[in-house]
Amino acid sequence: MVSKNQIKLINSLHQKKYRIEYGLFLAEGVKVVQELLQSNFKLKQLYCLEKEVFDGFEDKTIIVSEAEMKKITALNTPSTCLGIFEIIKPKAIQEKGIVIVLDDIRDPGNFGTIIRLCDWFGVEQIVCSNETVDLYNPKVIQATMGSVTRVNINYCNLKDFINQTKLPVFGTFMDGENIYKSQLPKEAILVFGNEANGISKEIELLIKNKLSIPRFGNIQKTESLNVATATAIFLSEFKRNN
Amino acid sequence: MVSKNQIKLINSLHQKKYRIEYGLFLAEGVKVVQELLQSNFKLKQLYCLEKEVFDGFEDKTIIVSEAEMKKITALNTPSTCLGIFEIIKPKAIQEKGIVIVLDDIRDPGNFGTIIRLCDWFGVEQIVCSNETVDLYNPKVIQATMGSVTRVNINYCNLKDFINQTKLPVFGTFMDGENIYKSQLPKEAILVFGNEANGISKEIELLIKNKLSIPRFGNIQKTESLNVATATAIFLSEFKRNN
Repeated sequence: MVSKNQIKLINSLHQKKYRIEYGLFLAEGVKVVQELLQSNFKLKQLYCLEKEVFDGFEDKTIIVSEAEMKKITALNTPSTCLGIFEIIKPKAIQEKGIVIVLDDIRDPGNFGTIIRLCDWFGVEQIVCSNETVDLYNPKVIQATMGSVTRVNINYCNLKDFINQTKLPVFGTFMDGENIYKSQLPKEAILVFGNEANGISKEIELLIKNKLSIPRFGNIQKTESLNVATATAIFLSEFKRNN
Repeated sequence: MVSKNQIKLINSLHQKKYRIEYGLFLAEGVKVVQELLQSNFKLKQLYCLEKEVFDGFEDKTIIVSEAEMKKITALNTPSTCLGIFEIIKPKAIQEKGIVIVLDDIRDPGNFGTIIRLCDWFGVEQIVCSNETVDLYNPKVIQATMGSVTRVNINYCNLKDFINQTKLPVFGTFMDGENIYKSQLPKEAILVFGNEANGISKEIELLIKNKLSIPRFGNIQKTESLNVATATAIFLSEFKRNN
């Protein structure tokens, strides 16, 4: 049974300002909650359907009905469990290997998918512009499928970050050099831009190495790739030979 | 101004059974509607905010308010225009080049992204299991960003289709051969499986060439890649050398 106050708290955590105020965030879905329970993230409270209680966490679990779950979920389709976890302060930015830089990614699904890709390809660091969607947005957390526990993610002024880095900086552009024909280093900063506008002009000026994924289809069309799929292809190319 | 009967018709098209009954589907968003208007798809009616009317289509346009748009949209965030188009019967399956086969993809965003990837990489044919999400689902149409006009998509019994093909059949598996070290042909069937369960047992038996994308991160974790990002990497690999 979930109280009115609990519903109010949980629903407030759908919004960034309350997540910051309380230092808490929501995670939904068995896979995601399971990964968080096995990580450094500290559990505050679990809300589960009766069939979905996690062994060893009974004392922090409140059993809820499907109707109650509908009242607290931040997703279109409610899951069988929802956890409240404490927000962790990220470690300092690690400039080694491949570092992904996100210049104003707005879609939670894209951001979550990019975090999941980083985990797969052994990328341990993502640096986001301050305008990028909040990591602790429930839809981002869900799309990471738990990978959020294995990637360090910082928000900062991108211009300052790129200006100080010693790593070579690469970016995705429609008119860049063919990525399949380029020499790609083991260590690099890879910048990806906003879904609608791409990389901002201000950041573009700081990028020495412009790459593009060649289009094999009807070349008259000026269509672009989705940013998460472009990230997949970039990471695959940077990692396949190294 | 949009009438009650029009609202009823449009909302019915959020559901597959009414799309089939009326032979109509919805497309939302300027980019998607624009691409459909320039294609073989036949426009039935356009609903646009006053600022978003398309030149040359005024006689088929009904100007609506933002409040009215909220009543007819199938998306979480209403767009500035919504078109009703006639469903087109697909051409017969073309078995040449790369053919993508989808074994029960359920997420509209994933399916739309895969169609967009096919368009980018010059893949002209997708074959779906009958259980795969409907191509004309408004969220699929939106995620294709118009690419749906350039890819032929058929639904059929996958077992029968794969049994009769002369092309080599490849599939994605956790324990497959490293895709980066494999010889990949110019012409092939590439099979991708359901988001939760992967490729079904029945179809797996018909796949001779099992490939996998190696994991570079923490190898103890049994995480998988999202199916749309796996498709991106597969298409990139099959196309980069051919």
